[in-house]
Amino acid sequence: MKISILTIGDELLIGQVINTNASWLSEKLTLAGFHVDSTFTVGDSLQDILEAFALGLSRADVLLVTGGLGPTSDDRTREALCLFYKCSLHSDPHAEEVISNFFRRRGLPLTTVNLKQAEVPDKCDPVHNPVGTAPGMWFEENGKILIAMPGVPFEMKQMVTDTILPKLISKFNPPYIAICNVLTQGLGESFLSDKIKEWEEQLPGEVSLAYLPQPGIVRLRLMARGKNKKELDSIIAEQISKLNNIIPELIFGYNDDTIEKIIGEMMVKKGVTLSTAESCTGGYIAHLITSVPGSSRYYKGSVIAYDNEIKINELGVQRKDIEQYGAVSKSVVVQMAEGIRKKFATEYSIAVSGIAGPDGGTPDKPVGTVWIAVSGPEGTTAIQDNFGDNRERHIRRTSLTALNILRNLFLTEHPV
Amino acid sequence: MKISILTIGDELLIGQVINTNASWLSEKLTLAGFHVDSTFTVGDSLQDILEAFALGLSRADVLLVTGGLGPTSDDRTREALCLFYKCSLHSDPHAEEVISNFFRRRGLPLTTVNLKQAEVPDKCDPVHNPVGTAPGMWFEENGKILIAMPGVPFEMKQMVTDTILPKLISKFNPPYIAICNVLTQGLGESFLSDKIKEWEEQLPGEVSLAYLPQPGIVRLRLMARGKNKKELDSIIAEQISKLNNIIPELIFGYNDDTIEKIIGEMMVKKGVTLSTAESCTGGYIAHLITSVPGSSRYYKGSVIAYDNEIKINELGVQRKDIEQYGAVSKSVVVQMAEGIRKKFATEYSIAVSGIAGPDGGTPDKPVGTVWIAVSGPEGTTAIQDNFGDNRERHIRRTSLTALNILRNLFLTEHPV
Repeated sequence: MKISILTIGDELLIGQVINTNASWLSEKLTLAGFHVDSTFTVGDSLQDILEAFALGLSRADVLLVTGGLGPTSDDRTREALCLFYKCSLHSDPHAEEVISNFFRRRGLPLTTVNLKQAEVPDKCDPVHNPVGTAPGMWFEENGKILIAMPGVPFEMKQMVTDTILPKLISKFNPPYIAICNVLTQGLGESFLSDKIKEWEEQLPGEVSLAYLPQPGIVRLRLMARGKNKKELDSIIAEQISKLNNIIPELIFGYNDDTIEKIIGEMMVKKGVTLSTAESCTGGYIAHLITSVPGSSRYYKGSVIAYDNEIKINELGVQRKDIEQYGAVSKSVVVQMAEGIRKKFATEYSIAVSGIAGPDGGTPDKPVGTVWIAVSGPEGTTAIQDNFGDNRERHIRRTSLTALNILRNLFLTEHPV
Repeated sequence: MKISILTIGDELLIGQVINTNASWLSEKLTLAGFHVDSTFTVGDSLQDILEAFALGLSRADVLLVTGGLGPTSDDRTREALCLFYKCSLHSDPHAEEVISNFFRRRGLPLTTVNLKQAEVPDKCDPVHNPVGTAPGMWFEENGKILIAMPGVPFEMKQMVTDTILPKLISKFNPPYIAICNVLTQGLGESFLSDKIKEWEEQLPGEVSLAYLPQPGIVRLRLMARGKNKKELDSIIAEQISKLNNIIPELIFGYNDDTIEKIIGEMMVKKGVTLSTAESCTGGYIAHLITSVPGSSRYYKGSVIAYDNEIKINELGVQRKDIEQYGAVSKSVVVQMAEGIRKKFATEYSIAVSGIAGPDGGTPDKPVGTVWIAVSGPEGTTAIQDNFGDNRERHIRRTSLTALNILRNLFLTEHPV
């Protein structure tokens, strides 16, 4: 059983919008056990849309279509569906009600143009749109299914999650997919791959592994497909447990976790607080920490000391140490971490100082050099590293590394 | 003359990778004056690739193909090209040399698998790959062109920019496209559209306008297509000048500008310095400012005062004012801005205090409420706004708004 995806819209063909609908649908369908055969994009021309319907249904058993259901004249999907399935439009009472309510709630006048969105081809089953106005349309003819959906991502997603995916699953009963993303921080893809080589080689045949790198993080996706949910889940769980014995310091979470969320949970659980002192990352560590809802329960604040005078006046760094060792040094970063921890009276603190580039490097300390210190009740740890000459990546890798050092120090001081 | 794009790879069909190649190519080709007719994605199966070649060339005059040129067995594009064009592979001496040099420079052993990438079908002109190993391949037969490129984005992009686009332009001489993105901050799409309605209505017929909204920013893309470069450029310039008379306070830059970069340029030019004091944005304003290379010349640092005690102890906010008016109030945010400006001895400062959510709202001050103050040599300005209950968007909109208030205050105090 094959599925094909057709996305419609001129805006996709002039590169104005990245086609996230196609990749989102591909991922959801794959994770539900379906095989996505192909995706197509055409513009808002009737002829192109009709050809794409025929092509998609010739290749696949199910064609998912997004776009072209809006109320304006450049939205041609409805018209194309009537021509393709040789039928007329009628107004769907349920969709009419949804649209009227939508406009009434917002105190907006209801025009005939808006009501046009309630019109559906006679041969389809309308699909309820809980977050917008245009209903989806489900066609079945000659053993093939075509489902048309709005192009607005959040409307399409809601419709797929609520109605379309459950209906496809119950109709086709695809194999079960057991899946887990293991999130690691601290080693690049190739070094990580070397380190877990033996584990990778002993993976059972039915488990597939993918490395999905992002700056500072590598996701490991384990996947197994079959009919026996319980067995597949336990196979994946066993392999993850083995991996956790090999690289516990690198694994910070699973699936939708973020390192800043994990740290927040640990801090709340132990009732401790955190502060930061940033130089080269310029607030990015604080931004990650405070992007977590509820972070004000454990995070007190930061001093961003871009200027050396601020390191001296606010964080108590010794002027002579900056002169002797430089601002990017173990001595300075340790004083920054201990200074902010004392000043803001927190149990833990993070400090970083480095050269994010593109200027400021020396032969001794090239662009990319960074010192990171983490301080806690049992002392201060500092490491040096080099995260390369791309400013954006340097900031991100430094920040994630600092957070992971804190996570590991915290686990050492508070064993589970 | 029509162009179609084919992207090949299983990873695109399981949603593991978003298809940025297709949108990047679409945009570059559109901006060069070409018409992109359609895009297709198929997996790494020989049959699917062959069918997609035939389909693409039946629809368009030029088919651009990315992916499947790697050295491993799941890369089938080379094989498909030989079958499609009925020819054999031979090793290209130039590509061989590029590959040998590539491995020699990195001190890596050269294997036969790597040298396989130098093989190209007899009927193509190889296209030099300046940043990778696999060459591109340019086919012309029966008046149709097929160009195969690597799927690695930065290799593909370099090849398109250096060779393929110039060659297509010189061959097809597409119309010239005059284009400018006007970057605005301060009004959402619909309010902005109301404000510039008259200007929009008087735009000459050959100028098209698109609204491209992002959180906190709306890009206005003006485009005109034709043969006379000089005339089109001047038409666009004239319309932008008119727009600048209507909404000078909203327009912060053009094309690749960022508001933080523009502020940096202004600060450097006038030789003044900046500090920040952030509560709800938790370091994001500092992060934006310090993402600009060279920002250490004008940015001294920040106090992130998530905790009220820090607002009092570090920024000199009066405890009684927090008690009387709350931490999210004009009085407190003005004291924060003036406190950090004095403490860090800078000419300008920004301070924000708000409720980013999801918790912390009250009937009086619902989630989303924010106070922003900007302080300079001629005084302090403060405004209140509400940026909604999505934490991420709230942080971003607050930060961009604060930076734009600084830009406007700065322009008032230093008229150009």
